[in-house]
Amino acid sequence: MVKVGILNVTGYAGAELARLLYNHPEAQLASVTGRSEAGKKLAEVFPHLAAYDMAVDPELGDVDFVFSALPHAASAESVAPLVQSGVPVVDISADFRLNDAKEYAEWYGGEHPAPELLPKVAYGLTELNREAVKASKLIANPGCYPESALLALAPAAKAGLIGPDIIIDSKSGVSGAGRGLKQSLLLAEAGESVSVYGLKGHRHLPEIVQELRKMWRESESPKVTFTPHLVPMTRGILSTCYAPLSTTKTEVEVRELYQQFYSDEPFVRIVDAPPSTKQVRGTNACHVYPTVDQRTDRLVVVSVLDNLVKGAAGQAIQNMNAMLGLPETMGIDMPALYP
Amino acid sequence: MVKVGILNVTGYAGAELARLLYNHPEAQLASVTGRSEAGKKLAEVFPHLAAYDMAVDPELGDVDFVFSALPHAASAESVAPLVQSGVPVVDISADFRLNDAKEYAEWYGGEHPAPELLPKVAYGLTELNREAVKASKLIANPGCYPESALLALAPAAKAGLIGPDIIIDSKSGVSGAGRGLKQSLLLAEAGESVSVYGLKGHRHLPEIVQELRKMWRESESPKVTFTPHLVPMTRGILSTCYAPLSTTKTEVEVRELYQQFYSDEPFVRIVDAPPSTKQVRGTNACHVYPTVDQRTDRLVVVSVLDNLVKGAAGQAIQNMNAMLGLPETMGIDMPALYP
Amino acid sequence: MVKVGILNVTGYAGAELARLLYNHPEAQLASVTGRSEAGKKLAEVFPHLAAYDMAVDPELGDVDFVFSALPHAASAESVAPLVQSGVPVVDISADFRLNDAKEYAEWYGGEHPAPELLPKVAYGLTELNREAVKASKLIANPGCYPESALLALAPAAKAGLIGPDIIIDSKSGVSGAGRGLKQSLLLAEAGESVSVYGLKGHRHLPEIVQELRKMWRESESPKVTFTPHLVPMTRGILSTCYAPLSTTKTEVEVRELYQQFYSDEPFVRIVDAPPSTKQVRGTNACHVYPTVDQRTDRLVVVSVLDNLVKGAAGQAIQNMNAMLGLPETMGIDMPALYP
Amino acid sequence: MVKVGILNVTGYAGAELARLLYNHPEAQLASVTGRSEAGKKLAEVFPHLAAYDMAVDPELGDVDFVFSALPHAASAESVAPLVQSGVPVVDISADFRLNDAKEYAEWYGGEHPAPELLPKVAYGLTELNREAVKASKLIANPGCYPESALLALAPAAKAGLIGPDIIIDSKSGVSGAGRGLKQSLLLAEAGESVSVYGLKGHRHLPEIVQELRKMWRESESPKVTFTPHLVPMTRGILSTCYAPLSTTKTEVEVRELYQQFYSDEPFVRIVDAPPSTKQVRGTNACHVYPTVDQRTDRLVVVSVLDNLVKGAAGQAIQNMNAMLGLPETMGIDMPALYP
Repeated sequence: MVKVGILNVTGYAGAELARLLYNHPEAQLASVTGRSEAGKKLAEVFPHLAAYDMAVDPELGDVDFVFSALPHAASAESVAPLVQSGVPVVDISADFRLNDAKEYAEWYGGEHPAPELLPKVAYGLTELNREAVKASKLIANPGCYPESALLALAPAAKAGLIGPDIIIDSKSGVSGAGRGLKQSLLLAEAGESVSVYGLKGHRHLPEIVQELRKMWRESESPKVTFTPHLVPMTRGILSTCYAPLSTTKTEVEVRELYQQFYSDEPFVRIVDAPPSTKQVRGTNACHVYPTVDQRTDRLVVVSVLDNLVKGAAGQAIQNMNAMLGLPETMGIDMPALYP
Repeated sequence: MVKVGILNVTGYAGAELARLLYNHPEAQLASVTGRSEAGKKLAEVFPHLAAYDMAVDPELGDVDFVFSALPHAASAESVAPLVQSGVPVVDISADFRLNDAKEYAEWYGGEHPAPELLPKVAYGLTELNREAVKASKLIANPGCYPESALLALAPAAKAGLIGPDIIIDSKSGVSGAGRGLKQSLLLAEAGESVSVYGLKGHRHLPEIVQELRKMWRESESPKVTFTPHLVPMTRGILSTCYAPLSTTKTEVEVRELYQQFYSDEPFVRIVDAPPSTKQVRGTNACHVYPTVDQRTDRLVVVSVLDNLVKGAAGQAIQNMNAMLGLPETMGIDMPALYP
Repeated sequence: MVKVGILNVTGYAGAELARLLYNHPEAQLASVTGRSEAGKKLAEVFPHLAAYDMAVDPELGDVDFVFSALPHAASAESVAPLVQSGVPVVDISADFRLNDAKEYAEWYGGEHPAPELLPKVAYGLTELNREAVKASKLIANPGCYPESALLALAPAAKAGLIGPDIIIDSKSGVSGAGRGLKQSLLLAEAGESVSVYGLKGHRHLPEIVQELRKMWRESESPKVTFTPHLVPMTRGILSTCYAPLSTTKTEVEVRELYQQFYSDEPFVRIVDAPPSTKQVRGTNACHVYPTVDQRTDRLVVVSVLDNLVKGAAGQAIQNMNAMLGLPETMGIDMPALYP
Repeated sequence: MVKVGILNVTGYAGAELARLLYNHPEAQLASVTGRSEAGKKLAEVFPHLAAYDMAVDPELGDVDFVFSALPHAASAESVAPLVQSGVPVVDISADFRLNDAKEYAEWYGGEHPAPELLPKVAYGLTELNREAVKASKLIANPGCYPESALLALAPAAKAGLIGPDIIIDSKSGVSGAGRGLKQSLLLAEAGESVSVYGLKGHRHLPEIVQELRKMWRESESPKVTFTPHLVPMTRGILSTCYAPLSTTKTEVEVRELYQQFYSDEPFVRIVDAPPSTKQVRGTNACHVYPTVDQRTDRLVVVSVLDNLVKGAAGQAIQNMNAMLGLPETMGIDMPALYP
């Protein structure tokens, strides 16, 4: 039984890790921290986790494996000594997602707290980077939007099927914005309303571009516009990805390519009807629906996932499973909460 | 491994049974039926159940245990021959909840289809009727509202703490009304709105009264007003139950009585802060919050549960576990999907 | 044209006043204040009020009539000098609702800031207190819950129809909790969930009791339990009010009594089907549905209103109209925003 | 006072016409029809319209002006004789939106019921086609999606600012799908979920292309991909429109162009912060937010409107006002219902 710790259990990603680990047969939650709530019972902070009967620790106890759900910068600082001492870590923050410390500084507004660790990092989109994940002790868990966009675009990008003019239009539930207090996230404000944000450049954009480039076969680099939207629900991301076909393909051919690409992946399903986020709520699944707009010769791929599971805590546990040599589906294989 | 069948998997209760059974270590879903959808793949009807890779059968195949999620009347008709042949059945419909066939006829508008089975039935509120459930082969799974009201009132009623003037004001998500097409259940109609219904007498009222009477110690029979409301969400019931204290008690004393009453129950938790339905979403838990209004000497007990789990499919599996001699929590012990 | 000022336009009640006054033919919004937002354009704080093209003032300008939407205590302090100088005021805060300064201190936790004004106050439930409203220069606009409960119970209470054991179970949208930042009001927390609060005694309880007593004909004083609930929507209150009939009445008789009682009231409608809050959203209407539970001889009255309109800003304008001798419906007569 | 009739008041667009006309100073609702509800009181079908105290007629009575909210095909059939006899008509259905009867047949699956009227039609996007609207007696009211997309793209398209590769990604509340009974529109299914539809070609696509072509200055025709999405709310459309800049422009320059273009339009506002649909809920406003993605030289324009008002009934009344020589804002100038 692996003793697992969670740094900052008090946000939504941290709490979701605790929820999912509850039924993991080989991992046991041994210690959790949470800045302002240290000393409280976990049940007091999150009544839905009352079954744990454990307290929020000021510092992490003795554990074999660590998930960090700290905010960026704080995460790298806390994670660095752990990595130094050989504890495997999956970092859910953004700190190790960008390979280049300069780009990090540009987008996250500050020097990278642990640039010396960057070469050791594996980008934790397990489906696209499995061997590196297995070989690494420090995983940068992907952002929720990049996860949805990259799973949607990877088969086409790797096959050289699409030109560089890529548009990613994403719709997210509000839990992606976290548990902090913002007026725009009040039910009275966000309810019954759709809004757009991040038009000046969302921090997930450089992550998407970085990973797309790695799989890109065309000569011209991808030119990505990424627009996130807030929809009045709690969980779920639907990303609609548009790219020109660089070679003529029918929808049937494209679907076959996608089916083939993900044929061995337990968590990615190529669906044959337009998907909705509720079909994957609470699960580690990502449903991908590739189509061709024949009027304009464009590939239009829609993906749906639960931003707190496949977009955060579930993907993190999938990475842990891979790192520990366990079946990747262990503890995170369940049907969605529908309706 | 017990081979399990579901009659009418295509409603919300049936689908929820399939969802929960997916991770049950001792039960395996072997056959499902569904009137209009027979022949289709389960994944086509419910994309979130795609992992099952099974078809909707026209008739139930060879199974060891049956859940019926058929509508009332149809359920008793389908269940009767199964019971005759010795197959244990948990009936989620209302057909076997009322002990008296005449009362059934009055409230459900038709002769009872199998009155000869009524003496064999155990009312499946496991926490309050465990021994009968274990000894029976035909369980009447409780209605979702009665489940919430009875768990809230039982400790006080059995202790003779309250007088007969009982008011139960319940608030339910729309999934309780089923998957049928009604204009009032459209998102555009039911969203951003609270409404009241069933003021002329809801079918769950006689069920509540029948079970309350069994536990009643006072001389005067309980006089229950039950008012259901529809709130703009999918899952969850919150019942606020009011009754005059027939003997002076402090809130501390009442809480102790409730704690004591449910001390061995894994699914009922006496909480110490006002509860919300989200704290139990997707789970078989019922949170109960007993308080005393000292200005008026009234007991006010609030309970929350997920109408599709503790109010239907989860309770049914708890009953199955009890009938089969398995731990009651098997397969249905998980934290809520929060947020 | 009456020049109107709003103290604290930046909360929901203040903004709603501005919304409704926009189309008032005899009143013109002349000045608005708002603590932290002074100096900003109103359009910046509330894009939906952009048509006003006015700024948030640090102090109220020259106006003929004032609405105060300040928090309690602050409101009385700001209102007192206005009343002194003869400016008519409708106070939406709670400061002048309780007739007794001692009771105010008990429930609101501090000395009343202007007890000398209490004798001059009229309680602004226009339908039940019209003459006093017309004769006063200082109106205590009712709380949203009392408004819904009193309109539901007044006909029965005044007719001596009911006994003292009254239970008021109210369900409110989250805008009633205001625009302040609380975790429990985030969409991710409050969405898809019903919760209960105020079980130790909500501040609207003494207001309800005070006003019920004034209309009470029975010898025994009303014993009221009031339980507010939060439902996952923005606007609307539905109150379900329970009381024992002290004299035998059929539902038809009760309905006739209610019809009669409100026959001249443009904003109160006795409806003949179970109501929903959406039917009155955005309007000053209150729909009342009186029923009799014949099994228990209880009166069950359900009322619905929009907490920001009939429960706050609309009622305030109705009061202004009455005070100024204008038709009470002026500027606030419109159909609901449905769906 | 113009006597107005509504064909098919029983859908959402028809009911919204009735709601908005209630406060129109120069128009009076004189007769309404509704297929299955004929004979009922309007209040019975729509409690929020109870103030009208009128019945649903089997046939339209004597009126001076007609709005048709009938389904397509049925609308043209009912409207043709009215137009023949000189009654001015605004048709909210799709029947007269496409100029070409062949294209109609292709997209709507049937011969056009009244092709002889097509030459008389004016496309009723008043802001872009004012003079034709004023001169016509038969107005094709725009589809809700085209309304949002065309208002967003017109300034750039008419100025020759953008190249032909246009992507329109729209997010709509469920009321756009009408009041018919579909399982996917139940609150239990559509709530807490985002979905995509219409990927094979939505009927609003040819309408968008037709109108864009009319304003197009570039040599190459626009190649439009239009993807509609359903978000869990009732009212509102947010369209995110992407197009390559064909000439280098800063965001400031683009904003100035947009400001200039709509400077005299009372209903279109160029906003300077990312918009949300709630800011325009219940109103005839369209907020447009033009931005430039400098990394990719793309124009990204976001527009928001209420699909039932600016996208249907409000636009129809604006057209009526223009046709009758009344101020266009008459009766439809009010702030949004916010929150």
